[in-house]
Amino acid sequence: MKFGGTSVASVERLQKVADRVIKKKEAGNQVIVVVSAMGKTTDSLVSMAGEISDRPSKREMDVLLSTGEQVTIALLSMVLIERGYDAISFTGWQAGIRTEAVHESARIASIDTSLIRPQLKKGSIVIVAGFQGVTEDGAITTLGRGGSDTSAVALAAAFGAQRCEIYTDVTGVFTTDPRYVDKARKLKEISYDEMLEMAYLGAGVLHPRAVEYAKNSHLELVVCSSFSDEEGTVIKEEVSMEKTKSVRGLAFEKNVTKVTLLGLPNNVTAVSRVFDAIAAKHINIDVIVQNVLDEARTSLSFTVDHDVLDETLDVLREQEKELEYHQMIFESELAKVSIVGSGMASNPGVAAQMFHALAGKGIKVKMISTSEIKVSTIIDESKLLLALDTLHETFHLAEEESVSL
Amino acid sequence: MKFGGTSVASVERLQKVADRVIKKKEAGNQVIVVVSAMGKTTDSLVSMAGEISDRPSKREMDVLLSTGEQVTIALLSMVLIERGYDAISFTGWQAGIRTEAVHESARIASIDTSLIRPQLKKGSIVIVAGFQGVTEDGAITTLGRGGSDTSAVALAAAFGAQRCEIYTDVTGVFTTDPRYVDKARKLKEISYDEMLEMAYLGAGVLHPRAVEYAKNSHLELVVCSSFSDEEGTVIKEEVSMEKTKSVRGLAFEKNVTKVTLLGLPNNVTAVSRVFDAIAAKHINIDVIVQNVLDEARTSLSFTVDHDVLDETLDVLREQEKELEYHQMIFESELAKVSIVGSGMASNPGVAAQMFHALAGKGIKVKMISTSEIKVSTIIDESKLLLALDTLHETFHLAEEESVSL
Repeated sequence: MKFGGTSVASVERLQKVADRVIKKKEAGNQVIVVVSAMGKTTDSLVSMAGEISDRPSKREMDVLLSTGEQVTIALLSMVLIERGYDAISFTGWQAGIRTEAVHESARIASIDTSLIRPQLKKGSIVIVAGFQGVTEDGAITTLGRGGSDTSAVALAAAFGAQRCEIYTDVTGVFTTDPRYVDKARKLKEISYDEMLEMAYLGAGVLHPRAVEYAKNSHLELVVCSSFSDEEGTVIKEEVSMEKTKSVRGLAFEKNVTKVTLLGLPNNVTAVSRVFDAIAAKHINIDVIVQNVLDEARTSLSFTVDHDVLDETLDVLREQEKELEYHQMIFESELAKVSIVGSGMASNPGVAAQMFHALAGKGIKVKMISTSEIKVSTIIDESKLLLALDTLHETFHLAEEESVSL
Repeated sequence: MKFGGTSVASVERLQKVADRVIKKKEAGNQVIVVVSAMGKTTDSLVSMAGEISDRPSKREMDVLLSTGEQVTIALLSMVLIERGYDAISFTGWQAGIRTEAVHESARIASIDTSLIRPQLKKGSIVIVAGFQGVTEDGAITTLGRGGSDTSAVALAAAFGAQRCEIYTDVTGVFTTDPRYVDKARKLKEISYDEMLEMAYLGAGVLHPRAVEYAKNSHLELVVCSSFSDEEGTVIKEEVSMEKTKSVRGLAFEKNVTKVTLLGLPNNVTAVSRVFDAIAAKHINIDVIVQNVLDEARTSLSFTVDHDVLDETLDVLREQEKELEYHQMIFESELAKVSIVGSGMASNPGVAAQMFHALAGKGIKVKMISTSEIKVSTIIDESKLLLALDTLHETFHLAEEESVSL
């Protein structure tokens, strides 16, 4: 059971978390609970470090931030003990969560289960600090964004858990964001690959790293609410559903800007030089489209988050000579809308159906990017809600699928 | 160098701590810095635990509280690194500070110096979390009151340090509390034993445990100010001074209550039964005086802190039958005043001189307790200031001693 920052934000909420944990324990399970730092703890630690340095030592940031989860494990254990249960806390190093020697975004290398197992055997509820581990040399590391999800999945896999339940402030994975689309429906099941695409496309329920880890370990993940008893969404290998429903959900992102370089030389290095220049500034690029205009020249378009537009334009202008483009144009206030579904690969008409539906509402598609199980389009942000409603309707996402569990 | 909670209460103060550390480093020293939790951090952690339980799990309290120092070591290291110095933080377990398996007041068993030594060798400033250690089984422990002082002394001893400097919010050890006696003077030197008596008698600069540890390790301790460059007080084995100055300082405590049991049976078990009854309630007793009245009966007086008076009286009343006393009386609003000095042992007139001086000012002595190097008296609290001034004068404490270092 993994509980995130909102779920453990106060002593009062920890009591509610304890309710759930006790219920699970009383049902006859061995339980490992993974928790994040309480509410805004991490933010306030980061801001103290920010008073000291613009780029504080990464090693020391990990020492600093890992205290956040340590506070939560101690308090949650106290709550459970006060309620008469055996509970015991483990920091990352105490739990034997060994990581590579990278600070602020370490990957888990191994988990020494011999440290926790005796406690499980004697019936204790084990509370583990998420987001953190320790290197072979005994340095404290943190796992970066989505780290606590990853801790939970890795522990579940290492202990051969029946399932890994991620408790969040939503009730599960939805066909699309219910804050934008009224008819958005909670999915009973979704496959790892679909969830991965949804996660990468900005449906922020689970971090892609955690999903990938679960996929590789064939571990059943459940996303459910810390605040209600509603059933959550099961993420697993094979999702049994009507074969006809090839689209499972819609993901989207706002605040997208498209940058186009016209008249780039049509040779193997021109494009890579552009992306090298941008990567050197740590700017993330999303959708990329390249058009060959003639034998000598090509045009290259890509999208970036609006927040880094100025920085992107600066880099490209500074290196105009070296990059040898003729003209640079950009377009802001765009959005990315994607359809996701593993059935799509075997159903080539799906993309066409998407474009047709959007065109039918007068929505112009400005860029397209596809993968095996998703199609992404860039459109005007002003048309986002219309596009979401249209696609939700077109692919019958509001209708219950017939699931055979 | 050890810096307490007030000295590290904010990022701004950490900058000042860094100034001192850098100066020490630049003077060619290898430096280990021990720090406490920042300002009120511990209090706020304790209060969160208090929301959960009146008696929170001791193991989990240690997990919780040890985060306080961990935050400080990370931030202080960041400050030093930002200033261009190599600095590296160590939690208790990372520093190899092994303790016995007792929570909330563990004693240090050993320190594995092989973990820190390589960092000292390569010139790094080593920042260690005070107050904490780890058991052989990998459980986090804390050292209880005065724990960070003890960590500092133990590290200094383990590394064969030249000296251990305790930075506090006072400038050193005084003949008595300067907030009460204008003429109180800072001592240049004081012996371990004298410091121990002063510490036990309530002069709160250093925790007795740390002094004892330093004494056993023959380690030179220095108490000095984090906020000024004044020279501090050196605590060491032999203090060279005029042999005639047998009293080195005055210690005192307010809020003292005297309880007397009249008509106790005059046998070997009667007194111990009284103290067993009180100890069972975890009430601390200070000065004890027993008078044999006749062959059959004795009277017993002892002092307790006023805060636990009601509890003490309750215990004794409940067990009136078993304890077989005739009458119980008590007297509040008393104070304890002690003179301390290692020269006293060889100078039997000192106690008489004290009583004479107090009597000369009409101050009635209600109880007396002596040791090799101190004499304590219980007097009316209303006469405390007069007694302190009188004794400070009588024993010439305001006058500079001639020290031959």
